[in-house]
Amino acid sequence: AIRSSVASVIVDKGAHRHFMAKEIAEQPEVVGHTLVRFIDMTAGRIRLPAGADFDFSGLDRLAISACGTAYYAGLVARYWFEKFARLPVDIDIASEFRYREPPLTPGGLALMISQSGETADTLATLRHCRAQGMTIGAVVNVPTSTIAREADVVFPTTAGVEVGVASTKAFTCQLAVLAALAIKAGRDRRVLSEQDEAKLVASLIEIPRLMAEALHLEPEIEKLAPSIAKAKDVLYLGRGTSYPIALEGALKLKEISYIHAEGYAAGELKHGPIALVDENVPVVVLAPFDGLFEKTASNMQEVAARGGRIVLITDKEGEAHAGETYATLVVPNAYAFVSPLIYAIPIQLLAYHTAVFMGTDVDQPRNLAKSVTVE
Amino acid sequence: AIRSSVASVIVDKGAHRHFMAKEIAEQPEVVGHTLVRFIDMTAGRIRLPAGADFDFSGLDRLAISACGTAYYAGLVARYWFEKFARLPVDIDIASEFRYREPPLTPGGLALMISQSGETADTLATLRHCRAQGMTIGAVVNVPTSTIAREADVVFPTTAGVEVGVASTKAFTCQLAVLAALAIKAGRDRRVLSEQDEAKLVASLIEIPRLMAEALHLEPEIEKLAPSIAKAKDVLYLGRGTSYPIALEGALKLKEISYIHAEGYAAGELKHGPIALVDENVPVVVLAPFDGLFEKTASNMQEVAARGGRIVLITDKEGEAHAGETYATLVVPNAYAFVSPLIYAIPIQLLAYHTAVFMGTDVDQPRNLAKSVTVE
Repeated sequence: AIRSSVASVIVDKGAHRHFMAKEIAEQPEVVGHTLVRFIDMTAGRIRLPAGADFDFSGLDRLAISACGTAYYAGLVARYWFEKFARLPVDIDIASEFRYREPPLTPGGLALMISQSGETADTLATLRHCRAQGMTIGAVVNVPTSTIAREADVVFPTTAGVEVGVASTKAFTCQLAVLAALAIKAGRDRRVLSEQDEAKLVASLIEIPRLMAEALHLEPEIEKLAPSIAKAKDVLYLGRGTSYPIALEGALKLKEISYIHAEGYAAGELKHGPIALVDENVPVVVLAPFDGLFEKTASNMQEVAARGGRIVLITDKEGEAHAGETYATLVVPNAYAFVSPLIYAIPIQLLAYHTAVFMGTDVDQPRNLAKSVTVE
Repeated sequence: AIRSSVASVIVDKGAHRHFMAKEIAEQPEVVGHTLVRFIDMTAGRIRLPAGADFDFSGLDRLAISACGTAYYAGLVARYWFEKFARLPVDIDIASEFRYREPPLTPGGLALMISQSGETADTLATLRHCRAQGMTIGAVVNVPTSTIAREADVVFPTTAGVEVGVASTKAFTCQLAVLAALAIKAGRDRRVLSEQDEAKLVASLIEIPRLMAEALHLEPEIEKLAPSIAKAKDVLYLGRGTSYPIALEGALKLKEISYIHAEGYAAGELKHGPIALVDENVPVVVLAPFDGLFEKTASNMQEVAARGGRIVLITDKEGEAHAGETYATLVVPNAYAFVSPLIYAIPIQLLAYHTAVFMGTDVDQPRNLAKSVTVE
């Protein structure tokens, strides 16, 4: 058991072999806890937590900044804010944002995302944005952290203490909060009707159940892990909101297995990375059966034609429409909107079981620290 | 010799072993040709080509979209437009931009970048932006191409026919055009004074000479290539405008040597990719001695502490201030502004000589086509 210096609570692995396994398994529960703080369950509407009732109606733009996994949560959120609220989003890696000094709108909202709330570059970006007269929102997991204290509005994730260095449950809780905020912004800006909101909130409420169902893929993924473990390189591909999940999938595998994995927008495949593809390179394709499926399926065929081994993560419909694959992992059908939270589960499990098979130190991978408090 | 279907001219390799080598060597000349079309050499000021005299003063935002290498040119341009013209830039990969359907400003400018002018996703994005009422600018190398014909304003690169599948001279010519446009925008928007413009134009005029000087690194880079060729993985790191050049360096190596190279913003190193670093992973660091050098140097120390072999590309000052490296390539001192064009040379040469040493088909790498005219 580890005593967390932050929360002074005792955290143990329970029946799990690693903290990471426990934290992956906890996601339906902690995402549920996070969502109930942003949803009025009786009315089926978004209700921001007390003290965080931000009004998005007056904004021209939204700036988002973060590092690592939290940055990928921000990339997903960009699609949501732009779609549901027609609110243009400027997003950049915190270490670039702060030195690039992009032109900012005083009075605008800058949203920082950080599990620990102590990430050095994100904190520096927060202070830069504040100096430019922006309002600061923070999506953080540690409510007593510096970023939480310095923000004007805190949108808390309630993932609980995350011990594994490779973030899992903090990521999906960040997505849950950002999804709720995007719906709120859509209502504030009169892009979404009350009925739209009710529908989207209903799909949010389903997330914990769908995540729990996706966790049932674990035995199948465990069987797949040895073949991934043999690979020197793995590519992850996705389009739309599946693109940041592809980046996150590659980052997870890289962090704990030390296999060189890289995520790409599927449309970029032919602009370079396909040169890497041969029979030794597994290509993990994230493709819900949505409006982009057909395009991604044609990228899959190009990979297959070069001998690449495709691991397709999709839903039932996608499975029926896909060509031949090396393996297909079928996640439950979900509204396209919430798919990033569901598809996060198999990519986390794939990284985890690959690393366990290889015998690396899953919870404390080499060279990495849990929170990066220096630049 | 190859007869180009586009220009109906005979192109040959001259004294070079590959078209790519010839095209790398041509850069001082073709970048010079491109620049003179955008500069009034007598007055030392920007003068856009006839028919392309666009006025940037009324813009709120600039949208940029492209694929592959051209996208990286756009990423560099974002820093320039934001710095010199305080013009906020929205940039996205074309295959994502078109399906994401971001909120756009009618009457705004959308800039498409493409060597061939036939890139399918970029063309589709152009049409999407036009349907939203935007003005379309195109930075293209083939003036008779579809993208050039459909654009409202064409900003031509005059790189000449590019035969090597891995783009080199088209990339630096795109950068040259974008640099000139950013200065023009800065003047139009009264962010730059006449004196500022004169200074920046003077630094543009120096580019061909500095590129020619950087080409003298070739024998040194050729000696370094065998050690890169042994690597399974290579990381490329940079900050600011060196970050997109790191992405481009990784793409070049990946395309023609099939070594899995990946570019990262140096500040993101500790958020994951450092887990990959051991004594078998060369890390190419692009770090001019500018305001960001110190931060990047501290990332280098972290890499060195994990046994990573650092190949530093820097200038004389940077060499003096860097710690120990595996190899240091010293490029000529240049204004920070133009450094992306200068640093492009060693990363191209490094990819080229590594591939030649490995014996791959440099001009026609496996799985890749010169222009991607399907999605």
